[in-house]
Amino acid sequence: MKETSVILQSAKRAAEEAFCLTTERKNAALEAMAEALIAAKNEILSANGKDVESARQSISDVMIDRLSLNESRIEAMAAGVRALIALPDPVGRVIERATRENGLIIEKVSVPFGVTAIIYESRPNVTSDAAALCFKSGNACVLRSGKEAFRTSFEVTKALRRGLKKCGENEDLIQILEDTSRESATALMKAEGYVDLLIPRGGKGLIKACVEQAKVPVIETGTGICHVYVDAAADLQKAVKIIENAKTSRPSVCNAEEVCLVHKNVAGTFLPLLYQTLVKNRLSEGKTAVELRCDKRASEILSGVCNGGDERYIKAAGAEDFDTEFLDYILAVGVVDDVRSAAEHIAKHSTHHSDAIVTEDKKAADYFAAAVDSAAVYVNASTRFTDGGEFGLGCEMGISTQKLHARGPMGLKELQTYKYVVRGNGQIR
Amino acid sequence: MKETSVILQSAKRAAEEAFCLTTERKNAALEAMAEALIAAKNEILSANGKDVESARQSISDVMIDRLSLNESRIEAMAAGVRALIALPDPVGRVIERATRENGLIIEKVSVPFGVTAIIYESRPNVTSDAAALCFKSGNACVLRSGKEAFRTSFEVTKALRRGLKKCGENEDLIQILEDTSRESATALMKAEGYVDLLIPRGGKGLIKACVEQAKVPVIETGTGICHVYVDAAADLQKAVKIIENAKTSRPSVCNAEEVCLVHKNVAGTFLPLLYQTLVKNRLSEGKTAVELRCDKRASEILSGVCNGGDERYIKAAGAEDFDTEFLDYILAVGVVDDVRSAAEHIAKHSTHHSDAIVTEDKKAADYFAAAVDSAAVYVNASTRFTDGGEFGLGCEMGISTQKLHARGPMGLKELQTYKYVVRGNGQIR
Repeated sequence: MKETSVILQSAKRAAEEAFCLTTERKNAALEAMAEALIAAKNEILSANGKDVESARQSISDVMIDRLSLNESRIEAMAAGVRALIALPDPVGRVIERATRENGLIIEKVSVPFGVTAIIYESRPNVTSDAAALCFKSGNACVLRSGKEAFRTSFEVTKALRRGLKKCGENEDLIQILEDTSRESATALMKAEGYVDLLIPRGGKGLIKACVEQAKVPVIETGTGICHVYVDAAADLQKAVKIIENAKTSRPSVCNAEEVCLVHKNVAGTFLPLLYQTLVKNRLSEGKTAVELRCDKRASEILSGVCNGGDERYIKAAGAEDFDTEFLDYILAVGVVDDVRSAAEHIAKHSTHHSDAIVTEDKKAADYFAAAVDSAAVYVNASTRFTDGGEFGLGCEMGISTQKLHARGPMGLKELQTYKYVVRGNGQIR
Repeated sequence: MKETSVILQSAKRAAEEAFCLTTERKNAALEAMAEALIAAKNEILSANGKDVESARQSISDVMIDRLSLNESRIEAMAAGVRALIALPDPVGRVIERATRENGLIIEKVSVPFGVTAIIYESRPNVTSDAAALCFKSGNACVLRSGKEAFRTSFEVTKALRRGLKKCGENEDLIQILEDTSRESATALMKAEGYVDLLIPRGGKGLIKACVEQAKVPVIETGTGICHVYVDAAADLQKAVKIIENAKTSRPSVCNAEEVCLVHKNVAGTFLPLLYQTLVKNRLSEGKTAVELRCDKRASEILSGVCNGGDERYIKAAGAEDFDTEFLDYILAVGVVDDVRSAAEHIAKHSTHHSDAIVTEDKKAADYFAAAVDSAAVYVNASTRFTDGGEFGLGCEMGISTQKLHARGPMGLKELQTYKYVVRGNGQIR
């Protein structure tokens, strides 16, 4: 087994030399990496079969599905790598340029971080997405896959490295830790001088451990308690469609809605419509209905409405329900006085991931967009759009919920820092 | 004494409402803050007198000088506040804008962090600089002054708050901790949910404590082991002037040079010139001479050169000398094979603050600028220019030596994060 410290040292060396990679060389290598993934289909599927086999006892069906590969999923991984070829090279962009009175020319230029480490769980496509994003953005990457997916991730990494080698590039730009113990994750968190950026992708526990223990710079990716606020001036049909989408299109993801706030003036009309759409219609269409956990004002309105045994989908909200990422067919519902109270509620309860207003009133929309301090603030659209692909960034390294450096979906640009290059002809101070 | 937790809560509230501050309102308040500083001259000077009086036993003369105020220094502080009026408002800048195929309009907009906390030591102007930068950039600030300067910092803060009040702005946008114990600094480091950004300005110990203990996002400001590399193609007269400036114009600051590297082809000519300039000339002009700590190759060249008892300024470099921030009239001197070895040496020994090449060879300059991964890389200019004022940022919040978010001098722009504002007309995914 390759020692973690050896991997970190060679990653650092590879990163230090990566400044000479041209866009052409990087794009050629990305193509070779995509081809190598396809060529290694059998090895990857066989490793994946073993991973799935041994994981079956210990993890849920949803997780097994996340872990499982087939031919078309491998092709999708290769397509993800290829998609980066068309995106602009983020390295060496002159962000600002100034000529000072003393003649100094100061340029602020985008440069890679150096070594980026990613700790993730069981989704094999993260291996190729993260490696390809790091490579195109001039970073060396050190991957630390979850134990359940290690065999698969290892084969995927081997294929990507073969692609690099074929093009004469340094294979050490893409490496995976062979040690999948908790200690190896901790080693990355404490690898000062070796890891320039650490991105944890996974559950709450992992993120918390990184934030608390890391001595290297971390970007938190995180939980989403996302709100949709239905304003007095909302188009209620639009609102109910947005909420059904935000809540039910994929309840297990971080950009799914967890809380619906409704302006008191329209609550009497809107809440019955919401109930009709999320409960009655879905039940009659054979879909999973959404449980509504209502605050006092919402309960009063809905108590007179439901009939025919659907009362079990209307519950009184408990103390925790407005602070919970359900990741399930459950929606907390509250009535608020106005857009200001909605923004205040969101400031208090949101995880500042994605929050939306539905309104036809430009003033209310502008107030909400200015007052709500979240990574993504929506006007008349579903929170589900917070995603690297949907934002046009290509595949993503995760969605940052912190404010330092990157916020929201992270793509190539977010894997850059900058430096100042100052040119003179002998200036002294 | 006001409790730290009470201060943090009111800072958070003030920050949440700061989105409604227009540029005009902010500039009017900055003017009022500057006027209030001048008006409070007597109170500030009297508090400063007490601080200086009680500090005299415990701190050095240099520190006493840093701590001491007089009328013209207070005027300079007010001028620093006023200088921000002319600078563009960093808040609400649309950094990127895209219209997606589905009609969504995605804007990436600069927004303040929220609450910015600054832990600093004994320079009173940091109080007004930091508070004014935070205010103009839409942040609430929580200041934590060193104990030695507390009376002064408190009076300065009071004056700034009077300026805010006069304009009807929320005074809680500028607050100072009244507790100056170590615990109050630790409280800021751990104030998750209250402090959005922590900037420590001070010695190594403080920075290290913040990096190790902080649970809130920190920007490290830091030590500078800055290099000047004299290339084979250097104009040697230019080189020696740049080095004298970088080393001796203010040896105690972080952008001062600590290491000189010389290409082997010119070392035989250049090192005697360096010795002449930094030792002989300075001695004969009654200035402090620079002690040269030489590696083996540099020693061999210089051993034949010095005479007349100046040998004491030429020493053999010890193991630590290429990794030490001397902050003194000492320079480590080494001979290297070429620009590549110079860059390798810098990668290994630099703190990635500011490093320079002196050369007339464009290829060598471009190689150095690309290969050296420091916050500021100079071609034919002194490292002393790494400074907010010199870079045109106005006064500065410190010089970041980390790569996450901000690098080099931090001004108004670096006190911004961003959010995505996404506008649609009912889009769902």
